[in-house]
Amino acid sequence: MTFQVYDTTLRDGAQREGISYSVVDKLAVARLLDDFGVGFIEGGWPGAMPKDTEFFRRARTELNLRHAILVAFGATRKAGVAVADDPQVRALLDAETAAVCLVAKSDIRHVERALRTTPAENLAMVRDTVAHFVAEGRRVFLDCEHFFDGYRFDPAYTSEVTAAALEAGAEVVVMCDTNGGMLPSRVTAAIGELVDRLGVTPDRLGIHCQNDTACAVANTVAAVEAGVRHFQATANGYGERPGNADLFAVVGNLQLKLGLPVLPDGCLEQMVRVSHAIAEIANIAPDTHQAYVGAAAFAHKAGLHASAIKVDPVLYNHVDPAVVGNDMRILVTEMAGRASIELKSRELGLDLAGHPDALSRVTKRVKELEAGGWSFEAADASFELLVRAELAAETGAVTTRPFALESYRVIVEHREDGAVVSEATVKVRVRGERVIATAEGNGPVNALDEALRVALSRHYPELAGFELADYKVRILEGSHGTGAVTRVLVETAAQQGRDWTTVGVHENVVEASWHALVDALTYGLAKTPTTT
Amino acid sequence: MTFQVYDTTLRDGAQREGISYSVVDKLAVARLLDDFGVGFIEGGWPGAMPKDTEFFRRARTELNLRHAILVAFGATRKAGVAVADDPQVRALLDAETAAVCLVAKSDIRHVERALRTTPAENLAMVRDTVAHFVAEGRRVFLDCEHFFDGYRFDPAYTSEVTAAALEAGAEVVVMCDTNGGMLPSRVTAAIGELVDRLGVTPDRLGIHCQNDTACAVANTVAAVEAGVRHFQATANGYGERPGNADLFAVVGNLQLKLGLPVLPDGCLEQMVRVSHAIAEIANIAPDTHQAYVGAAAFAHKAGLHASAIKVDPVLYNHVDPAVVGNDMRILVTEMAGRASIELKSRELGLDLAGHPDALSRVTKRVKELEAGGWSFEAADASFELLVRAELAAETGAVTTRPFALESYRVIVEHREDGAVVSEATVKVRVRGERVIATAEGNGPVNALDEALRVALSRHYPELAGFELADYKVRILEGSHGTGAVTRVLVETAAQQGRDWTTVGVHENVVEASWHALVDALTYGLAKTPTTT
Repeated sequence: MTFQVYDTTLRDGAQREGISYSVVDKLAVARLLDDFGVGFIEGGWPGAMPKDTEFFRRARTELNLRHAILVAFGATRKAGVAVADDPQVRALLDAETAAVCLVAKSDIRHVERALRTTPAENLAMVRDTVAHFVAEGRRVFLDCEHFFDGYRFDPAYTSEVTAAALEAGAEVVVMCDTNGGMLPSRVTAAIGELVDRLGVTPDRLGIHCQNDTACAVANTVAAVEAGVRHFQATANGYGERPGNADLFAVVGNLQLKLGLPVLPDGCLEQMVRVSHAIAEIANIAPDTHQAYVGAAAFAHKAGLHASAIKVDPVLYNHVDPAVVGNDMRILVTEMAGRASIELKSRELGLDLAGHPDALSRVTKRVKELEAGGWSFEAADASFELLVRAELAAETGAVTTRPFALESYRVIVEHREDGAVVSEATVKVRVRGERVIATAEGNGPVNALDEALRVALSRHYPELAGFELADYKVRILEGSHGTGAVTRVLVETAAQQGRDWTTVGVHENVVEASWHALVDALTYGLAKTPTTT
Repeated sequence: MTFQVYDTTLRDGAQREGISYSVVDKLAVARLLDDFGVGFIEGGWPGAMPKDTEFFRRARTELNLRHAILVAFGATRKAGVAVADDPQVRALLDAETAAVCLVAKSDIRHVERALRTTPAENLAMVRDTVAHFVAEGRRVFLDCEHFFDGYRFDPAYTSEVTAAALEAGAEVVVMCDTNGGMLPSRVTAAIGELVDRLGVTPDRLGIHCQNDTACAVANTVAAVEAGVRHFQATANGYGERPGNADLFAVVGNLQLKLGLPVLPDGCLEQMVRVSHAIAEIANIAPDTHQAYVGAAAFAHKAGLHASAIKVDPVLYNHVDPAVVGNDMRILVTEMAGRASIELKSRELGLDLAGHPDALSRVTKRVKELEAGGWSFEAADASFELLVRAELAAETGAVTTRPFALESYRVIVEHREDGAVVSEATVKVRVRGERVIATAEGNGPVNALDEALRVALSRHYPELAGFELADYKVRILEGSHGTGAVTRVLVETAAQQGRDWTTVGVHENVVEASWHALVDALTYGLAKTPTTT
């Protein structure tokens, strides 16, 4: 049996305080996880959450996963209800995924005190529901909630639940450390005992750890060392309370420390990019100190040992940072290094390797901008515009911006009658002509976007095909309150599912948005065949 | 032998990017660590760092440690130099601490390639330096740098270094996972082998882990399970790259999971206070999701299970939060029901249980608002204002808002000369008076905040004590672009470390910010004794 890398960022990970994904966000996260090569993506709980029902509906036509299988999550049938009559079971079937994951109680105290049913009925609920989905042709995983606490309190009952699910046809029964209180030695011991008791091989078991002892990654690795081949984790360890096992640290440890081939070839080096892009979508600042993927994960304070580190990096890094798409940093600098910029440019189809001077200038410019709060992790289009400008400068080509700003003014009023209105006026030069346009919007940025489109529409009718699809704001250096720097990400969508993201940074949110909007239209116009 | 809880926050932990303690900071951190009951505080590297020399000088008269012994850190003598002639050794003696910790190379590759000396001379350096400090009446610990990598590459040499130090009189030899690449199973195996090879008991060994595999806490626990009785850690896991083993998680696990008495009585419940106070001194925002001590470490999204959690908290928390000085928090979320709202209100000191009608109205109102994008999860102050208003309505009490808005206007201009300016005018009624005020800011929200403060300052001088500490923006339902709903969270800080968070939601970011700002000032004024 190969490894089952099972991601639950979109279901259990979304329990983290403050995370609130839109359906579009969820589709984007699923694509990133697929790029990273996970085998299973748990997309949500259809029926329980309307947004998740919608996600699975759109996923059928909009996601083209190369590596992953989409999994819908749900619960075993309700006590005292026939499985076919349970609307929650129905909603789970209607998600039309090849695999489902069912959560079941496996701690007898939770059966009696939270579920308020009998131990026997709970076993029947597990059997019936697993068998129902197997009969419907689905692959079935069973998450045993509070597995380890339950096993410790009453090993016989927790083992019975596990056996019932396996007998009914579950592919894997997942031991969930729901309260997160385990330590690696206890995970090892429990798996050894359970395997003996049930007479199954450990590859019929899975592991799902929460991080309440700061051991979720270690507990997951310990389970794999004990023979488990299915593990559940979330990107960046997002999850309720201290979070879940971090997908990236677990994969890094299994693949690079234990030499286990858990990902398809070519995926491991996507780690940093995928981690940071998901952080952007979740609107959580990436953790600089996160193992493997943090900007400081391989940062060494310059000083006495700098030259030794440069000569013999292998003596100072626990793994080669490039293997996970990270960089070693010697000096205290911002994130970007030449290597990652070259790598990223190559991804975009731009050859900087053959233009070392342009590469140097791009690296310098990115470092300056990142020091000021810019981030290109999730803004490929702005990055590409920057690289193209430097490449054009080197080859002597002339790059003309499609328009130039003279000035803008945005007014937001809360009037005496309670109405809130926004109005923007822009003055631009387009192809030698001076154009003034005014428009209203439901907020200052929307008004500005509308006014700019009105101003440009005669010269660039193709703008009508670009839709502003998403807009994200992050305040950096929060300790200065509203005086802090604001970073805006704008996602623009066009025909044929094309979309691109641009970035703007300024202490003023309107000006930051303006930068991102200008990049969005400039990029879109450069990539769209002209119709005039 | 009792446990040696050895803290290195002030030495190895200070390697974290961005940390820069003053001498006063270091004294304050040492007092906090002593409150937490650690046995040893490594204060710094006298001689190498002038600030550390000064720290040890002042510590002699200014620190009155109840539990901890102060330790000075240094290196073994230089190659080819007599130990008595080494100025660094001299500086370490001059720190006049009862114990010293010496770092030594124990990986033969580092001896030859970084230190550029012979394996034999390195052994002599260890022997000479340890013996020298023992002869001077000091307790000596020896940190073996790159211990595990060295042991894997050449177990004989690394063992020889260990043996040399123990024979020369070192109390404990500390195995340092300097590059942080270890896993718990490997720590266990290495200690077992080493103990056999040297014929010593494991309590002569210590452990020091870095977090590059996200396993530093687990590795430390594994070493203790293997018999080690000296462990080194840092507050909140601060340290170079992904950091060190987190003192708090290690202590929590040893004391509460393994039942080992590592701290003096009465110290464990200082954990949250000490953790957060050190974060303040280090000027690093406390990690909300940190195990044991994070504000979200015991936070549950209530919904369906709130009533079960209320009845049986022991089934949902891996330890009793009060034991480490933390609290269980119930988050008011999308799935909020009566039970969680009642529980949350009780946390805030408001009794809704005795007012079922008010409870119903609050529940209805919260559901309506959350359906519109409001979130009270992180905005306790706005939630409290809402509950107080409903309670007042039930008891017939009159609640007067401190001011009423007539209108506001905000203008953002990007002028021809490139300058970006923001200006706001507010018209409000305060205590029967109509006030108009205008102010500038570095963005639209800052300008609005300033104008409102100008308008209210004469009637409410206490506003000057409220500082806008953080401002967060989240766009909801991103599929509608800038037309989506915007949620703003405002954190306000006042004297004595008081702070509170408020929320505002509107399609217009300026109006959403206005709601949050108004709640922030209203709440602050209600909680602050009037000075007029």
